[in-house]
Amino acid sequence: MRPNTLRRLKAEGKPIVNAWLSIGAPYAAEAIAHQGFDAATIDCQHGMIGFDTAIAMLQAVSSTPAIPMVRPSGLAPAEIMRFLDAGSYGVICPMISTADDAARLVAACRYPPKGVRSFGPARGMLYGGADYLDHANDEILVLAMIETREGLDNLDTILDVEGLDGIYVGPNDLGLALGHRPLNEPEDGPVAEAIEHVRAATNVRGLISGIFCSNGTAAAMRVAQGFDLVTPGNDAALLRATMADAVKATRR
Amino acid sequence: MRPNTLRRLKAEGKPIVNAWLSIGAPYAAEAIAHQGFDAATIDCQHGMIGFDTAIAMLQAVSSTPAIPMVRPSGLAPAEIMRFLDAGSYGVICPMISTADDAARLVAACRYPPKGVRSFGPARGMLYGGADYLDHANDEILVLAMIETREGLDNLDTILDVEGLDGIYVGPNDLGLALGHRPLNEPEDGPVAEAIEHVRAATNVRGLISGIFCSNGTAAAMRVAQGFDLVTPGNDAALLRATMADAVKATRR
Amino acid sequence: MRPNTLRRLKAEGKPIVNAWLSIGAPYAAEAIAHQGFDAATIDCQHGMIGFDTAIAMLQAVSSTPAIPMVRPSGLAPAEIMRFLDAGSYGVICPMISTADDAARLVAACRYPPKGVRSFGPARGMLYGGADYLDHANDEILVLAMIETREGLDNLDTILDVEGLDGIYVGPNDLGLALGHRPLNEPEDGPVAEAIEHVRAATNVRGLISGIFCSNGTAAAMRVAQGFDLVTPGNDAALLRATMADAVKATRR
Amino acid sequence: MRPNTLRRLKAEGKPIVNAWLSIGAPYAAEAIAHQGFDAATIDCQHGMIGFDTAIAMLQAVSSTPAIPMVRPSGLAPAEIMRFLDAGSYGVICPMISTADDAARLVAACRYPPKGVRSFGPARGMLYGGADYLDHANDEILVLAMIETREGLDNLDTILDVEGLDGIYVGPNDLGLALGHRPLNEPEDGPVAEAIEHVRAATNVRGLISGIFCSNGTAAAMRVAQGFDLVTPGNDAALLRATMADAVKATRR
Amino acid sequence: MRPNTLRRLKAEGKPIVNAWLSIGAPYAAEAIAHQGFDAATIDCQHGMIGFDTAIAMLQAVSSTPAIPMVRPSGLAPAEIMRFLDAGSYGVICPMISTADDAARLVAACRYPPKGVRSFGPARGMLYGGADYLDHANDEILVLAMIETREGLDNLDTILDVEGLDGIYVGPNDLGLALGHRPLNEPEDGPVAEAIEHVRAATNVRGLISGIFCSNGTAAAMRVAQGFDLVTPGNDAALLRATMADAVKATRR
Amino acid sequence: MRPNTLRRLKAEGKPIVNAWLSIGAPYAAEAIAHQGFDAATIDCQHGMIGFDTAIAMLQAVSSTPAIPMVRPSGLAPAEIMRFLDAGSYGVICPMISTADDAARLVAACRYPPKGVRSFGPARGMLYGGADYLDHANDEILVLAMIETREGLDNLDTILDVEGLDGIYVGPNDLGLALGHRPLNEPEDGPVAEAIEHVRAATNVRGLISGIFCSNGTAAAMRVAQGFDLVTPGNDAALLRATMADAVKATRR
Repeated sequence: MRPNTLRRLKAEGKPIVNAWLSIGAPYAAEAIAHQGFDAATIDCQHGMIGFDTAIAMLQAVSSTPAIPMVRPSGLAPAEIMRFLDAGSYGVICPMISTADDAARLVAACRYPPKGVRSFGPARGMLYGGADYLDHANDEILVLAMIETREGLDNLDTILDVEGLDGIYVGPNDLGLALGHRPLNEPEDGPVAEAIEHVRAATNVRGLISGIFCSNGTAAAMRVAQGFDLVTPGNDAALLRATMADAVKATRR
Repeated sequence: MRPNTLRRLKAEGKPIVNAWLSIGAPYAAEAIAHQGFDAATIDCQHGMIGFDTAIAMLQAVSSTPAIPMVRPSGLAPAEIMRFLDAGSYGVICPMISTADDAARLVAACRYPPKGVRSFGPARGMLYGGADYLDHANDEILVLAMIETREGLDNLDTILDVEGLDGIYVGPNDLGLALGHRPLNEPEDGPVAEAIEHVRAATNVRGLISGIFCSNGTAAAMRVAQGFDLVTPGNDAALLRATMADAVKATRR
Repeated sequence: MRPNTLRRLKAEGKPIVNAWLSIGAPYAAEAIAHQGFDAATIDCQHGMIGFDTAIAMLQAVSSTPAIPMVRPSGLAPAEIMRFLDAGSYGVICPMISTADDAARLVAACRYPPKGVRSFGPARGMLYGGADYLDHANDEILVLAMIETREGLDNLDTILDVEGLDGIYVGPNDLGLALGHRPLNEPEDGPVAEAIEHVRAATNVRGLISGIFCSNGTAAAMRVAQGFDLVTPGNDAALLRATMADAVKATRR
Repeated sequence: MRPNTLRRLKAEGKPIVNAWLSIGAPYAAEAIAHQGFDAATIDCQHGMIGFDTAIAMLQAVSSTPAIPMVRPSGLAPAEIMRFLDAGSYGVICPMISTADDAARLVAACRYPPKGVRSFGPARGMLYGGADYLDHANDEILVLAMIETREGLDNLDTILDVEGLDGIYVGPNDLGLALGHRPLNEPEDGPVAEAIEHVRAATNVRGLISGIFCSNGTAAAMRVAQGFDLVTPGNDAALLRATMADAVKATRR
Repeated sequence: MRPNTLRRLKAEGKPIVNAWLSIGAPYAAEAIAHQGFDAATIDCQHGMIGFDTAIAMLQAVSSTPAIPMVRPSGLAPAEIMRFLDAGSYGVICPMISTADDAARLVAACRYPPKGVRSFGPARGMLYGGADYLDHANDEILVLAMIETREGLDNLDTILDVEGLDGIYVGPNDLGLALGHRPLNEPEDGPVAEAIEHVRAATNVRGLISGIFCSNGTAAAMRVAQGFDLVTPGNDAALLRATMADAVKATRR
Repeated sequence: MRPNTLRRLKAEGKPIVNAWLSIGAPYAAEAIAHQGFDAATIDCQHGMIGFDTAIAMLQAVSSTPAIPMVRPSGLAPAEIMRFLDAGSYGVICPMISTADDAARLVAACRYPPKGVRSFGPARGMLYGGADYLDHANDEILVLAMIETREGLDNLDTILDVEGLDGIYVGPNDLGLALGHRPLNEPEDGPVAEAIEHVRAATNVRGLISGIFCSNGTAAAMRVAQGFDLVTPGNDAALLRATMADAVKATRR
């Protein structure tokens, strides 16, 4: 089975740079995934992407060096299994608030006896290889998003769930949940502290700590802070900004 | 009929800032068209966009202040009429090399007796209004791309074609045709001179001179040069660049 | 944020005329939404519409005066949040039978602390505006469908759920649930009484009462009855009927 | 091969009632084709329909009693052959102005030695049957649209082209070409006379005379006039009208 | 209502040969369904098929003699109802492990008072007929997949659920659940015994026993064993194998 | 630029085994292209594939070892350029009958000064690399289909066209053109002789001789005959046959 290079990067202590794909266009996905990213995550929660388009995006990313991952719409095991069957090599699952949530998430991503994933890895075998079944439980990455107060409270029991590979912080939702404005990089205060707390607790267990960032500069800062996997902005926001800049430069 | 605001901008001597859409995604089209552009052109020549997707992109642009235009795959009257029926308010037609080409282009965009456009403005009437037929010949913009040596040679007779609203320079193809590397902003030499020659001949007749540019800075320079309509880069190239920058900033 | 004009119509005591879109075609959606409707609801329960198509339909409706709404497939919070992110300004949720159902529905549509909606309003910000987050909780309409016996029994506690904006009656399912044939406008008897009971209990609280109707004549009757929001038939049924009439008129 | 029932209707002197499909939605196509039509024509000239959608619409119509036909974007042999391969049982070709045009149209629709159609009837064999090649030249209907002054002038030589099955009048374009407003049913004057002239010349040769009509009443009138194939309005226009009526009835 | 011919085949003791569609292509679906199958099941669990594509595939199958069925992504009532509305005449539901699961499955497929299916059979009425509501509860097939240890343990209570029409064995998942490699036709041992146990318990009650098989030879063996409904391989696997054979034959 | 491995195979005297893709499904394209083929050709002439789907299929093939090629609908330069921009590494163009046809085909595939290809290799640069422009004229394969009597008559002048890389025989159309039934492998007679004549004339010039074959056995025979590039059947036909066999084996 094609190895999940993200595991090797973690093992080597190298940062994982992850693209965030919310535009429902296989061509954009392919173009982005060629820009030096280690991974590319198709956002099926907040992205404008249905399942038919997500399959084509997974195919497009598969022709690049980036490892394809998906954020499903929520903790929906049947949906998660479909994305894995379609060749996703990782799952970043929103709104994991309890150890039970985390256990159900892991179970959805692992074949028996480690989980309850149903067998039928259609595109997964094309991308992964003929021995997919033998190694999928070891290669597929499972990351839980910590973005609720309950998730924070249950952080330790969540991290103790066997088979969970790490967490991914959604600073916007976490900030909202703690009563603040959504902000990717809060400077100080409880949200910044919560983020660092999550990271430290994750890293101390040797798990992958991931986080969404506003841009490359912020992502570099998060790497310096100790995060393993960083997302330097999402495609739609960066495209909007770069296009608005182009207009301004033209009209200046 | 909804007025084509690009004509008013030309009349007022204000530059027209035009977005270039080559990613086949209605969501990207809509997001871009909201960033302050006066027009947004769906590139069905070099863009990764089929007709089914182009219709949805025209709809998406229609909910923004930008005027929707299309670059067809070539001088294909039936295809051009389809885009107009789908609500495009302008056509930027590639590879116009002779007055006859230009006349066929104009004829495809005008109802009799001025042309041979067939009647059936499906989405056109939704976007333009119930009196579409009465005004379409006056509102729809028809721009010819000058990008071959033959087109340069025939520039004057092309510009004299009744009903042509202006030209659009494709510096890449023009450079190639003149035996140079494709370059959007050649500094000096025959390609730069040819571009200025086209612009001057167009503007002196009161027609619209348009040009593709690498980015906003280059577009501002072209406006200073006297061009009426400028395109500060295409979406895919800007997205690739901004994503590559994000990776570099993260890894630096 | 773009105001939800449906709230103003309710405040002014004017009826809200709502189109029902079950044909999966952005062009049909746009054409219909231009015919004088105040709102247009994309039916993702019984309509032949997947998520990829629904996004394009939301974009198409956004270029018209009609407010875009969605009926999700059921009380599925992750799916509901996706439609809101895609720019839906209202949700008509099927099969709300208990106050707990209603509370979960409201929570899915409201950002913390009023709910649990996750932050990432992709197209929502394009349609709604940059200050979407500040006002979305106040602008998005949340309507619960009352169409089960249990829903009828729990009507008062449902209506008391903080944040619910109103109800929408599905006469067909309500009739079936009460042991009758599906009928949009039952003349007398328990179903007609139940419908009036729901309406009265809703309106007395100042909430929006909505209902599906067979056609314009029936809708006018429902307005006269006191309903605030009426749907004069669905697109597929009206199209079938008008086409069958055309055949009959031809063959007569 | 599945017989083309439209030929039998012509032979029996019965009118052919033809649906006009301009909405790009297989579900709408299927629903309409079930309403009693003898044929259903997918309009790929003025309809909002790309090739990917057209294939699905041909499949949808294939499950109904209506014979599927296509109007291509123009006299484009490669495109016409694709629609035939996709299972269209007839072609209504726009803008046939000369006998040469008509001959090229016929050639595109017939296998050698009668024409130059390339062999590869993919879906055509699924719909038509395994012996498609033996009978396709006899079953596929080829209709030329007469809608230019030149077409009128050349009517006799067009009608004499071997293999042409008939004509189809586009009154809108014909009116425009003759210097009048587009009108489906001009009461008197040169356009009305031209229409009758075309019909008579066609019928006298035993060929099929077809025409687009505003609605069922107009279509019945055209049948009375002697037309063989009538189209009682197009789907988008009828849908818009019925929806506008529903709004008016609601608000009255 | 169009009768569900699968019920008649069962009544007559004839095997039901079922195609398995995992390629998201309406053309492939139609081509396959014409090859002599009694039924064709669109696999929305492990197949690469979103809802928009599934609708088109249901339409494509509807033009063939095969009865269209769907495997939903899981026991998701809202999703199941959507497929029924779209014209599926049967449901093969994954991962039914308890009598409660089976009861919820049946309820999703039956109108009140037998179930909770919501009324709105859009395409269902086009395929099934105008009297769909009167007969749908009797015609739609409901099959539960037995593929977990829990499902085996609860087999009798599952089979006793009123309204369940039968079961469908997924040998791969069942094998995995019992601690073995996934294998469609295990020769001996506990998985083979479990399969026979399920079949016997199902058939003794007069219900339909179905099973997935590797190919036609294996399917014939299952028929001989007593299975009522067999699936001789899935489209993607057979296509891969036949293509690999073609390469080998060429290179030999 | 990524080298076109087909040229190396020709240089080494190894046969090129080419898949034929007529099913419009990126998943099927990817699955097939993984089965050992050297090339995979997307058939946009007789295949059921629009441009939007073709792009996704090119992406899917790009993740496999097979070189992606396209058969356009005809000798349509604008369409051919679009497929090249979308990443096709070769063109198999139908119906080349004269040296002028061949010259126009070559010109469409080559940048100036060797041709008239317009510059804008969107996906082409993602698949080919950043130096695409420097090498595309040398890497892209241009094959002309000889399938008319005129093409046979002009064979020598066609083969002499500078820049043409070879020919591809369509035995069906060639047979039809010569007055015979379409047959991929005619045993003797004028069609078999014509095929051998084309092959010999092509190979003697060192150009690539390609041909469509019924299956792998026939393809092996063609390789033995001296053909360089063989297509062992098309996907739809092989899928139909394998599915029909599965049914027969089940029912036997």
